[in-house]
Amino acid sequence: MLPPAPRPLLVAAAVLWFCLAVTNAKVHHYDWDISYQHKSPDCFEKLAVTVNGEAPGPTIRATQGDTIVVTVNNKLETENTAIHWHGIRQIDTPWADGVAGVTQCPILPGETFTYKFVVDRAGTYLYHAHYGMQRVAGLNGMIVVTVPDGIREPFTYDEEHTVLLQDWWHKSVYDQATGLSAKPFVFVGEPQSLLINGRGMFNCSNLATPTGSCNNSRPDCTLPALFSIVPGKTYLLRLGSLTSLSSLSFEIEGHSMTVVEADGHYVRPFVVRSLFIYSGETYSVLFKADQDPRRNYWATSHIVGRNATMTPSGKAVVSYAGNDPRKTPPTVPTNGPAWDNTAIRVEQSKSILAHPGYVVPVPVRADRTLLLLNTQNNIDGHIKWTINGVSLHFPATPYLVSMKHGLTDAYDQRPPLDTYDHRGHDISAPAPTNGTIGSPVYRLAFDSVVDVVLQNSNMLNNQSETHPWHLHGHDFWVLGHGDGKFDPTADAWRLLNVKDPIMKNTVPLHPDGWTAIRFHANNPGVWLFHCHVEAHVFMGMGVVFEEGVESVGRLPSSIMGCGHSKGLH
Amino acid sequence: MLPPAPRPLLVAAAVLWFCLAVTNAKVHHYDWDISYQHKSPDCFEKLAVTVNGEAPGPTIRATQGDTIVVTVNNKLETENTAIHWHGIRQIDTPWADGVAGVTQCPILPGETFTYKFVVDRAGTYLYHAHYGMQRVAGLNGMIVVTVPDGIREPFTYDEEHTVLLQDWWHKSVYDQATGLSAKPFVFVGEPQSLLINGRGMFNCSNLATPTGSCNNSRPDCTLPALFSIVPGKTYLLRLGSLTSLSSLSFEIEGHSMTVVEADGHYVRPFVVRSLFIYSGETYSVLFKADQDPRRNYWATSHIVGRNATMTPSGKAVVSYAGNDPRKTPPTVPTNGPAWDNTAIRVEQSKSILAHPGYVVPVPVRADRTLLLLNTQNNIDGHIKWTINGVSLHFPATPYLVSMKHGLTDAYDQRPPLDTYDHRGHDISAPAPTNGTIGSPVYRLAFDSVVDVVLQNSNMLNNQSETHPWHLHGHDFWVLGHGDGKFDPTADAWRLLNVKDPIMKNTVPLHPDGWTAIRFHANNPGVWLFHCHVEAHVFMGMGVVFEEGVESVGRLPSSIMGCGHSKGLH
Repeated sequence: MLPPAPRPLLVAAAVLWFCLAVTNAKVHHYDWDISYQHKSPDCFEKLAVTVNGEAPGPTIRATQGDTIVVTVNNKLETENTAIHWHGIRQIDTPWADGVAGVTQCPILPGETFTYKFVVDRAGTYLYHAHYGMQRVAGLNGMIVVTVPDGIREPFTYDEEHTVLLQDWWHKSVYDQATGLSAKPFVFVGEPQSLLINGRGMFNCSNLATPTGSCNNSRPDCTLPALFSIVPGKTYLLRLGSLTSLSSLSFEIEGHSMTVVEADGHYVRPFVVRSLFIYSGETYSVLFKADQDPRRNYWATSHIVGRNATMTPSGKAVVSYAGNDPRKTPPTVPTNGPAWDNTAIRVEQSKSILAHPGYVVPVPVRADRTLLLLNTQNNIDGHIKWTINGVSLHFPATPYLVSMKHGLTDAYDQRPPLDTYDHRGHDISAPAPTNGTIGSPVYRLAFDSVVDVVLQNSNMLNNQSETHPWHLHGHDFWVLGHGDGKFDPTADAWRLLNVKDPIMKNTVPLHPDGWTAIRFHANNPGVWLFHCHVEAHVFMGMGVVFEEGVESVGRLPSSIMGCGHSKGLH
Repeated sequence: MLPPAPRPLLVAAAVLWFCLAVTNAKVHHYDWDISYQHKSPDCFEKLAVTVNGEAPGPTIRATQGDTIVVTVNNKLETENTAIHWHGIRQIDTPWADGVAGVTQCPILPGETFTYKFVVDRAGTYLYHAHYGMQRVAGLNGMIVVTVPDGIREPFTYDEEHTVLLQDWWHKSVYDQATGLSAKPFVFVGEPQSLLINGRGMFNCSNLATPTGSCNNSRPDCTLPALFSIVPGKTYLLRLGSLTSLSSLSFEIEGHSMTVVEADGHYVRPFVVRSLFIYSGETYSVLFKADQDPRRNYWATSHIVGRNATMTPSGKAVVSYAGNDPRKTPPTVPTNGPAWDNTAIRVEQSKSILAHPGYVVPVPVRADRTLLLLNTQNNIDGHIKWTINGVSLHFPATPYLVSMKHGLTDAYDQRPPLDTYDHRGHDISAPAPTNGTIGSPVYRLAFDSVVDVVLQNSNMLNNQSETHPWHLHGHDFWVLGHGDGKFDPTADAWRLLNVKDPIMKNTVPLHPDGWTAIRFHANNPGVWLFHCHVEAHVFMGMGVVFEEGVESVGRLPSSIMGCGHSKGLH
């Protein structure tokens, strides 16, 4: 099922074709009402933030080069919103990135905001609310960008399906956020359910106190039928994770999967039984319907990296054609890989490399290197995440507006630190009680090459966690993952992969380890780089990059109206 | 305890004194953080919107003529806010009335807004969130404005206390609002508790499904000790109701109360056992500690006008000095007056007249008369309240800004109707399925006198409800209450009280009846007039008045930034 890799000539031809194809680009219009609805994704009824009444929202489908226009009507009563198009680089449209506080003012109740952007690269992407912790309330979905007609991908398949993975809480986002901000700190806890394509099945009898809002007898409380397959055919699964907290493994019982794409980039194919997928990541995998077609099979998601014994696995049914698509498979679903086996996850991360025919050449050296240490700090009694000592708090005025218009009192002018005390800091010991809350910006020279080494260290509870870091506005080369502390003075740089690294927009930082990435700061705008665990970024785990903001075109007035930007509309 | 009424000369002296006293006026500064907190006002823990961590918020205390400055820091994560100063007329400061959509844009998370206004008349007032149904979440409080030193009131007392009455739901505002907007319509239901000064006691064993968030053993789950009294002394109680839905009666076991003030106006004193109080109203009552001081007494609130059998009475303890202030009285608390005895409530409404020494002369005739019929309508499957066929929906741009700046496309230009088909309409039959949703404005000639007759009629369920109507920016004369349909062609006008009507800002419209008021449209601005039942105004039960907006001073830019006002900052 894997044809030979295309040669560089083919790549050049594809680029040429793309340039010609732009004239055929389509514009896809969407009109979305954002509102609260009572939803029971896992048989427990709660309020969800929906797109046209649904959570997750509809899948956006387009062809590379097309333009997407989404008109967002905020029909919430008292709550603002903003929607981020995760993995779309927003070249020439940095104001459409959808991050309230960074690239726009939030959209107020009763107001309409239009996002317009080009999907310039084929692949699997995501969208979600990017305002407070709002995406936890349900505003999530997928974006599928296909190659134009006539372009061959480095693999073939018969049909494709999308699979969106989520975790789900029964308590409200307000409840979660209030706890995270409280003294003493109250963590959000483990999710009650894992959802596959928006469906899960919570066992209501597991509630400490059964309530009428949990009902396993309701008609929509059934095992989700994921899709049906035909013996001998090959399927492409476009997988995306928009978990709020959980790192996951995903598998289809009895069927091995070949990973062929990650975050919109073709991967040197490798075969897995379990795919590890972190919040904000997407993968395309191929699998063949090559098992006994007289029965159905489990598709399952499992939490890894945290000891979530109370959270049952996500379960859905993959049926063979002709079977009842909801018929329960005859087997007991697996529990997935051991949650605490970090080594196999790091190993899989290391095996994700660029497809030989699609290597994007890596700049040989960086102009600037940032060593970003995360620590958990107690700041005035509040538990916060800091990066090099600063816990990020978005200002009331979006950075893009304040930086483009020189509103220097709208954010912290003191630059954040490029490094930390990498000699003195013991990553196995929790940070001391220090750190500050602020809104500083890393101002990057336009067109420069930047290395970032993310350095994990122990939390206040002396454990180390997985942090999937997501960069807005760019893809980056994943140069390496390692254990322990990255020593910038040692040979570590030599060991990084500058030959065929994969490009991604989200990469895990594994427990007790480091992750090194490189990117080209050539997309004018202001871009958030943050842990995609919603509670973590809420607690300050992120940084802001600016590059070439002076060459950003005239900002649309629709992104203004808050903070210091009120007068600029 | 009631000295003779002051003569008109005294009134004139008071006015003179006031003018002189302005130079002694103080400025009171408050700095408020608005945030969600976990609160258990009735032993059931839920999220509440708080002022500096408390719900209800602090009581504002000032002297007539003082200036209040409240700096509001919105520390909610994704939700806007606005605070209304209920009963304060905002003379010369119409932008400080705090109604999002009418007088200002909402205050965004992370932003600070400063309210500054003069409290120009002694009396008891209220404050609360005025954005969506947000006040239901807990942002409520009282304002006490005392007469300046040297001014005698028409009564004396030894001490005063404030009593704030509320009703309280266990489900969130989001849940309530989502139900009200849903097809099919889901009503908010009756409250779980009635609170007295922010405290109630829900019996957790009455929960269909007991949960850990309801706990009658928690230390703060006790009968509230309201205040302690000394035998022989006379007390002034400043009572206010900020219920979301419920009409109430209030009594202090064994102690009769003399009503002396209503909504900031002195009342011809009358004695009650039970005071009926409607959402948005305030009363001052005197009572004497003249009962057996060896025991304590119940202070109770009870729902009237709705058959709320599941809602227990609000209960608090009034103790005599020397007793344990929390000691349960030896008696069984009363259930209050029969909930469905409309006649005694109408009778009490009619007995509220201006104190003879403080009658504000009534203009002899009105320049314009509005007959406002409320009906419940099914509009495209949504249940709405309409006034003369229009269900009020606030525009994205505050009226004050759009009218002052001539943004004529920001709200409905077609004027609403001054009357309804009062011959043809049968108030005992539900309205037909019609009506529209809109944002029109009654433009009143500046300095004109306006009569409004509120006409009740049956809901879709064929019943008629109590609607306490509140007028912003003004007090009005209460000219009369009547049963059935007000017939403007008949002698009804002759029967109205133009001799000594009380002035109020909130007045009940009783079931199956009408209420007539008159006001002087002499306060430049845009003013909401609406039913103070939060679910009802949410469903459209209100109208908007404009008068003299052209003479309003330059609007502060801080009220702008939303809708069409973005460019005006």
